[in-house]
Amino acid sequence: MSLTRTTQITVGAGGSALPLGARTSIATVCLSGTLGDKLDAIAYAGFDGVEIFEPDLIAAPGRPAELARATADRGLSIDLYQPFRDLDSQDPDRFRRNLIRLERKFSVMDDLGCDLLLVCSSPLASAACDDGLLTEQLATAAQLAAARGKRLAYEALAWGHHVNDYRHAAAIVAAVDNPALGTCLDSFHILSRGADPSGIADLPGDSIFFLQLADAPRMAMDLLQWSRHHRCLPGQGNFDLVSFTDHVLAAGYRGPWSLEVFSDVFRHADPVRTASDAHRSLRYLAELVGAGHPESSETAVSQGVGASGEERRPVTGGVVSIRVAAGPTSAPQLGEVLGPLGFDLSGVDSSTGLQLYRDAELAVVVDPTVGTVWTSPGAPTDMPTIAQIGLRSAEPGAWAARAAKFDVPVASIAAPGPSSRPEAAVEVVRLDVTDSLAIDLRPALSAGSWQRHFDLVPREPAAVASLYTGVDHIGIGMGPADWEAAMLLLRSVFGMSVEEGLDVPDAVGTMRSQALTSATESGEPIRLVASLVPSRLDGHGPLRRRGGLTHAAFACDDIVATARACRSRGLITLPIPENYYDDLRARFDLGADRIDALRRYDILYDADEIGGEFFHFFTPTIADDLFFEVVCRRGGYRGYGEVNSPVRVAAALAFDA
Amino acid sequence: MSLTRTTQITVGAGGSALPLGARTSIATVCLSGTLGDKLDAIAYAGFDGVEIFEPDLIAAPGRPAELARATADRGLSIDLYQPFRDLDSQDPDRFRRNLIRLERKFSVMDDLGCDLLLVCSSPLASAACDDGLLTEQLATAAQLAAARGKRLAYEALAWGHHVNDYRHAAAIVAAVDNPALGTCLDSFHILSRGADPSGIADLPGDSIFFLQLADAPRMAMDLLQWSRHHRCLPGQGNFDLVSFTDHVLAAGYRGPWSLEVFSDVFRHADPVRTASDAHRSLRYLAELVGAGHPESSETAVSQGVGASGEERRPVTGGVVSIRVAAGPTSAPQLGEVLGPLGFDLSGVDSSTGLQLYRDAELAVVVDPTVGTVWTSPGAPTDMPTIAQIGLRSAEPGAWAARAAKFDVPVASIAAPGPSSRPEAAVEVVRLDVTDSLAIDLRPALSAGSWQRHFDLVPREPAAVASLYTGVDHIGIGMGPADWEAAMLLLRSVFGMSVEEGLDVPDAVGTMRSQALTSATESGEPIRLVASLVPSRLDGHGPLRRRGGLTHAAFACDDIVATARACRSRGLITLPIPENYYDDLRARFDLGADRIDALRRYDILYDADEIGGEFFHFFTPTIADDLFFEVVCRRGGYRGYGEVNSPVRVAAALAFDA
Repeated sequence: MSLTRTTQITVGAGGSALPLGARTSIATVCLSGTLGDKLDAIAYAGFDGVEIFEPDLIAAPGRPAELARATADRGLSIDLYQPFRDLDSQDPDRFRRNLIRLERKFSVMDDLGCDLLLVCSSPLASAACDDGLLTEQLATAAQLAAARGKRLAYEALAWGHHVNDYRHAAAIVAAVDNPALGTCLDSFHILSRGADPSGIADLPGDSIFFLQLADAPRMAMDLLQWSRHHRCLPGQGNFDLVSFTDHVLAAGYRGPWSLEVFSDVFRHADPVRTASDAHRSLRYLAELVGAGHPESSETAVSQGVGASGEERRPVTGGVVSIRVAAGPTSAPQLGEVLGPLGFDLSGVDSSTGLQLYRDAELAVVVDPTVGTVWTSPGAPTDMPTIAQIGLRSAEPGAWAARAAKFDVPVASIAAPGPSSRPEAAVEVVRLDVTDSLAIDLRPALSAGSWQRHFDLVPREPAAVASLYTGVDHIGIGMGPADWEAAMLLLRSVFGMSVEEGLDVPDAVGTMRSQALTSATESGEPIRLVASLVPSRLDGHGPLRRRGGLTHAAFACDDIVATARACRSRGLITLPIPENYYDDLRARFDLGADRIDALRRYDILYDADEIGGEFFHFFTPTIADDLFFEVVCRRGGYRGYGEVNSPVRVAAALAFDA
Repeated sequence: MSLTRTTQITVGAGGSALPLGARTSIATVCLSGTLGDKLDAIAYAGFDGVEIFEPDLIAAPGRPAELARATADRGLSIDLYQPFRDLDSQDPDRFRRNLIRLERKFSVMDDLGCDLLLVCSSPLASAACDDGLLTEQLATAAQLAAARGKRLAYEALAWGHHVNDYRHAAAIVAAVDNPALGTCLDSFHILSRGADPSGIADLPGDSIFFLQLADAPRMAMDLLQWSRHHRCLPGQGNFDLVSFTDHVLAAGYRGPWSLEVFSDVFRHADPVRTASDAHRSLRYLAELVGAGHPESSETAVSQGVGASGEERRPVTGGVVSIRVAAGPTSAPQLGEVLGPLGFDLSGVDSSTGLQLYRDAELAVVVDPTVGTVWTSPGAPTDMPTIAQIGLRSAEPGAWAARAAKFDVPVASIAAPGPSSRPEAAVEVVRLDVTDSLAIDLRPALSAGSWQRHFDLVPREPAAVASLYTGVDHIGIGMGPADWEAAMLLLRSVFGMSVEEGLDVPDAVGTMRSQALTSATESGEPIRLVASLVPSRLDGHGPLRRRGGLTHAAFACDDIVATARACRSRGLITLPIPENYYDDLRARFDLGADRIDALRRYDILYDADEIGGEFFHFFTPTIADDLFFEVVCRRGGYRGYGEVNSPVRVAAALAFDA
């Protein structure tokens, strides 16, 4: 693992980032490295406090009192010491020894200057299995705690043997009725089981001692495995943490919002990057929670962002341009494909060498100077990559405000000024989707502004008629180390929503595919399909995948007419096997004529349960990576023809062979 | 993915490799690449036949008749076409359309020249949900099949809606009573549910149309996800495939043994390597199955290997030497640690430069010329790696025979001849555990033979007394691409057994740890702990892990005395935090004196449920990778102190900082 700080992050300004003045906290187990590394990263990211994860303390060279000083020196409070496992037991002798263990941990907490201990419900078969015994044992522990000036936050583990539901834990706490005993509410343990969180709002607020937040992708797997390996930060998974947190606030809880995320990814990621994303994730959650709370929406407004969800998200008119970093070897190949697709070379920027390909509305800008080089066993090769996506925006300033709010580095911001030409009134932002996931807010090269940048090649009017209604979606690859951070960025700054993910197996591997969408003024959403490339078998460098990965899909109204037009311009469509059409005929009630038309133009087909239909064809891959797709949606089809993806990959391999 | 064939494999000699003359087969879905790549690899590995996985056919450019020719040209039969999903339905109209789909697939099979179709039980809620309707619909399908000269192999998917158990599927097949309908038995679907496979032996042999074999690691997860992503080859997982296959043979099944392995790893691995391992896995299984079948043991004997499990595994006297590829920068550091550990520099091989460190019985050979270089952001660095393990063997020829049996490349074999010196009567083999997993059968540099290779440095007699009773275990890292192949190699050729795997989270990531053991003459097993390093964050090159990964652990009878002796020789033990001992005191009933002795010598402790105890201390890591460990086992403790592993890693990070 690199110790280099990959991202330089501006720490948020002072004052609470959360509603109702709540404090931010994070468990040390969320991060990689030594305890010192973790505390540095947590402080640097702007957190107010930490939960000390006991194994981190045990493995650290510093004594608890030294840790207390180190934490205070960094401006952090110690909000919780955790976990204390398997307290209760059917075996009285075991319980007696557990109390001795508890007393010893109280001594550690004395030195730490921390008064709150997390006590988990026991997953052991030997746990106290009736409420009476459990209440009695927790009451004993609470008395011990009170005598030592400590408090116990009892948490229902999702896989607890007797207690695995927050309502059960709360009932035991109520029965004990000792102010030294309360509950800890952990979103994972509650939402992973599908428990209804609305009951939280009815709990006495002062009985909720602590709030732990974690998101997770929906996975069909054992709860413990899911919890220990695949948690993620709020805004990176599929849990409804907004409602969850709303219920906790409604109960009257005013303590820290603390993150407890066990993640195999974060365990070997740069702790500074993880901690910064973690703090960002709490601010993202706070913004959404705030929308429903009049008190807290003031906070949101004071940060320059409106309270309602609609106002908060800068509305765009969709994708207007794509910039491809092609490099000198791929740029000519791109031109050979873009021309037949209907994008003529319309200008070259004399200062930068950028090549502008355009149809009436859309621009593809090819950069022949900068490509992504990957080194194969043979010679280095240029790999064309979609480096930027141009989005039309009526209020580009709002993008900058959002980027600032979430401490996302912005390369530069060009404010629209009085010198803007009329066509620049529609400003455009560029989302850089390559390595750094930074945001570049310089005006993009849009159809409305390219005259300023390019020496235009005049075209015949007929040629300017667009074949496409817009960009249907953009496909990009990401590595495991970037996946979570990208999801949070796209959701927080760009207001995108995630769909359920999908695993797609094909001839070169299994790829996790995750669609994200964002509403636009035109009604047609911006769609991004992120693909998780499981490992970089080629070592460091750009993500690539044999058969192609990165792509731009253009939308049209008549797939056959569009394919015919492209063919007449010389396009070679990716050849689709005859066997595919035999199978289509077996699977669908499509007439022979229709199938024949599809076959003639190498068009693939899908249909959904509600009668929606999807038609698409592909170009061969360029430099073994980038390809273009033309799609046509009918009847509200919402997918991406994923079922055809293995066919495309195999066809691309066969074409390249 | 590289298309380079990483392993050159000698294809097995003619004749069936399986008992009872059974044929070997494999589903195309097991491999990556185009259908052509897959068939090439399957033929090259020596299989007799294939299952054609329909999506592979659909995505292939060749028509079914061409595929039939291509398959025949490679000497392969097409044993099965699969899968046909969702045949039965509560909706009569849907069932009618499914029959049309079935007829179309029969036409494809006509062209393929294949008469057997796999029909899966349906996972849909709309599936036929009573046995009467299901029997009726399968009877109709069987009549259609018979009329077309086809047969249907009905398989109970583990997640089938109405039928998910092989006994239920067999009962339906019996009720239909049509010779065109039989069952397909898939070990994954049966064993993943924990179903008792002994009932298979009671099925009519001629009703079992097909046998699909897959192993899998034990995982607590959703059956479908487990099945689709984590199957592996026989001998790579935790299923008891020997009993399973025994039951199938007992029923009278004499058809192909076919592999159907859905694996995310194999989906992006070299298909030639996977296919060769696949064929090897069937031969490994056949050897174990054969042990229980007098008929088939003849096959085993004719291959030069005895029928009983005991005879088959070459017995060794344990580990006698370790060769460390250190390179010029790490070699001196190794010497600085080995000396205090009790291994004196006892000789240098004048021709190779190899350095021999030895105590009375054990040898550590340091190669200062060959190291594993990894390139950090700064300068290239030597990384010391355990390159070979020397095993004492009374019959080294048997190792060579087993390597040959499983087509494992052997670098060279030195037969013990009349010129052998007396001390060489104990021959030694070397297991190369680095990149290629090849086996090197040249005599290793053992305590008994080093005089031939080294100019010995005379030592004082006192210094020759050994501190250690032997090598307790060796720890090595493997990447995901090598893991399955290594498991199969270690189990088949070296006769090792796997324990349950374990996930160990620590300060630099989560690591899968898998112990393998092998019995020896002395009773103390050879133990190997393989660690799966999840991704090569440093790109290509050797696997490494901050805090150390590769290690050799020496066994002793008195941990405190050994630590004291090493200290007196100048050893710096890896400093263990005070906090660790505070926690030990809280967790265990260890007296203050005992804990104090542990603390003084940086000894870590573990105990198991049955009173077994484990004591161990560590050296700091050398060049951020290799370390040594000294361990003491008491009372039958079988683990490796995994609970202390995060403490060691954090301590190593702190020591290096």
